[in-house]
Amino acid sequence: AHVSLFMLEVKVIIANAIIAILTIGGQQLFSFFTFSCPCHVGQNLIYGLAFLGVPALILLIVGYALNNQTWRLVTGKRSPLQQEGTRNHLLQCKLTCFVLCSITGRALVAPVTWLAVTLINGSFYVCAVSEYVSTYYFGGNSNITASERRKILAAFPCSQLVPPELSRAKDEVILLLRYQSQVAGWLLIAVVVITVFLSYCLASCFSPLSFLHFRYWTKYVHNEQELFDEAMDQHSRLYAMQHVRKFFGFAPGSENVKEIRIPSLREW
Amino acid sequence: AHVSLFMLEVKVIIANAIIAILTIGGQQLFSFFTFSCPCHVGQNLIYGLAFLGVPALILLIVGYALNNQTWRLVTGKRSPLQQEGTRNHLLQCKLTCFVLCSITGRALVAPVTWLAVTLINGSFYVCAVSEYVSTYYFGGNSNITASERRKILAAFPCSQLVPPELSRAKDEVILLLRYQSQVAGWLLIAVVVITVFLSYCLASCFSPLSFLHFRYWTKYVHNEQELFDEAMDQHSRLYAMQHVRKFFGFAPGSENVKEIRIPSLREW
Amino acid sequence: AHVSLFMLEVKVIIANAIIAILTIGGQQLFSFFTFSCPCHVGQNLIYGLAFLGVPALILLIVGYALNNQTWRLVTGKRSPLQQEGTRNHLLQCKLTCFVLCSITGRALVAPVTWLAVTLINGSFYVCAVSEYVSTYYFGGNSNITASERRKILAAFPCSQLVPPELSRAKDEVILLLRYQSQVAGWLLIAVVVITVFLSYCLASCFSPLSFLHFRYWTKYVHNEQELFDEAMDQHSRLYAMQHVRKFFGFAPGSENVKEIRIPSLREW
Repeated sequence: AHVSLFMLEVKVIIANAIIAILTIGGQQLFSFFTFSCPCHVGQNLIYGLAFLGVPALILLIVGYALNNQTWRLVTGKRSPLQQEGTRNHLLQCKLTCFVLCSITGRALVAPVTWLAVTLINGSFYVCAVSEYVSTYYFGGNSNITASERRKILAAFPCSQLVPPELSRAKDEVILLLRYQSQVAGWLLIAVVVITVFLSYCLASCFSPLSFLHFRYWTKYVHNEQELFDEAMDQHSRLYAMQHVRKFFGFAPGSENVKEIRIPSLREW
Repeated sequence: AHVSLFMLEVKVIIANAIIAILTIGGQQLFSFFTFSCPCHVGQNLIYGLAFLGVPALILLIVGYALNNQTWRLVTGKRSPLQQEGTRNHLLQCKLTCFVLCSITGRALVAPVTWLAVTLINGSFYVCAVSEYVSTYYFGGNSNITASERRKILAAFPCSQLVPPELSRAKDEVILLLRYQSQVAGWLLIAVVVITVFLSYCLASCFSPLSFLHFRYWTKYVHNEQELFDEAMDQHSRLYAMQHVRKFFGFAPGSENVKEIRIPSLREW
Repeated sequence: AHVSLFMLEVKVIIANAIIAILTIGGQQLFSFFTFSCPCHVGQNLIYGLAFLGVPALILLIVGYALNNQTWRLVTGKRSPLQQEGTRNHLLQCKLTCFVLCSITGRALVAPVTWLAVTLINGSFYVCAVSEYVSTYYFGGNSNITASERRKILAAFPCSQLVPPELSRAKDEVILLLRYQSQVAGWLLIAVVVITVFLSYCLASCFSPLSFLHFRYWTKYVHNEQELFDEAMDQHSRLYAMQHVRKFFGFAPGSENVKEIRIPSLREW
């Protein structure tokens, strides 16, 4: 029993780790094969946001969709958990809120990993905001217009479009943007990890259940679901068997069949 | 039971994932080995659409054809599901509509993946619409006629046909078109994912069945089909056995045959 | 029992070794693929600290979170250990303190390894503090201003931004910083190892339990937890079985089911 509960927790951790690693791998493949910055004023930002935001959105929705709890919440009927204890309306609200937080937390693993990995990689961010870098990096020749300057800055992520005399300025701008992107990525990770840890701690502090009591209920809910599913399968099998027997006149799988019934054309 | 239902859901996810991965792989192989843009005014669009649309259409039709539910719907008889509950005409319409949506949803996985991957890859789109790029990208030498300009633009996807002085313009046009194609691909994916998720949510909200009840019926329908097939096989075997015994005077496979019957020439 | 206790100790050592090796590998991959110093005054230090500190913080928090004892302490109820012996308030404080130290010790393995490996590798430290190197290394031409000098020093970690006449000074500064970083890393390791060993020794000296007595209690706590978990599993299983039987009319897994109960729509 100790082992099986331990396995349950380990499974959750391994699942999250696999999600995170797949996200990292996908991001690397992705940015390498398909990302090519348009290097044009006004398009860079949209392009960068599309590559940054849409996969994160998809991962979030997939995370919600793959969680059984979501559908249990949406159909809004009594869950096995609710059969125990809570008859009060306030408690029901609290429980819904708790389940919602728990689902969201699970669903956020992949998109947050995606955002953090993308920011630490940096190439999407460099493309998206290169045209908004301040004038500070063009110290000497400020005789060009602002729109001209933005056009030059927008071309910096594409090496082949940058004239050789601006090569050093380009290097400095790209280093600056990578610095901003990577520090933002680390801050995101730090904030998320601290928030998650503190919210778990607070939830545990204000929980009416002690540690062992909580483990007992986790175990109970898990067992109830397992037994319920088993009984559901057996029940539906027996029920279907009755219907089939009524139709064909014998139960499938029985050895010595005395007589068979020929269903009329109408019945098909 | 828990395991088998879990396997059922996992099987659906894995099936969809395999379809998607095969589509992606096929698209990559395909665009690498067989796609070569004609680079000629008026042919590019037809060529690009042929490579974009025909595989999508084939995947859609194959998706419909491989689904058992399609044939059940087309033959228009009562399915085992309908034996339960629905006697009302309105309900029957609703059910048909629901099954149709479910089949279409399953059949659309492959073509939508194909379209999205093709747009994110970008090479088909670049070939198809390069001749329709606006004049903005020919700032300096606008002394050429419109048809001449279209001819030059149509040749941009083939590097070997572009004169060296237009090399920079070609780079910018291709970056622009890849940007349009990839953003369109991401928008397609985002719209599809959000639509699917919301429609599932709404369907669950207005469903008369709770989460567990729905799982019970899924399980029941699956069991009934399995038992029905088993009984059908046994029944048809017994029925055929009766006919053969009537003809030859003994049942095939029986050990001690007392007498055999010589069928008259007429009976053959 | 001797073997299993031995296994317990071996398991702890192997777990720590795996944590340490994963940390070392991750650090190497990490500094190779994603670390690129911004080489700009005022950004270097933040960047270096972000790469040095945030992973260490994450590893520390993860180390706390994965430890069952943390949650037992936070929920603040009686642990099985406390059921024995300690009714005194002072002793309870001491026990809490001891458990806290034990958790912290386990949680510190990964972050300390990360810090030590990062310092011995040296590239993060070189980037972070290169602008604070004293003026000693610009012996000849000290006619430049202090801010100018810091700007040049800040660019030293990026080879492509250093003018060729300062190449020798750059080499000397980088060798100096690597020396400082690596010596600091070894000192950190030495201090940690000695502290851990001495604290174990002191804890053993002032412990009221003899060596064999302590081993007995370790064994007892381990056995109690195992038996408690086993009983918990069986109890929750039986309790869930009662509920399921009430719902479906039979116990799942029973062979000869006389009659089944069709639950009403209300009950789902």
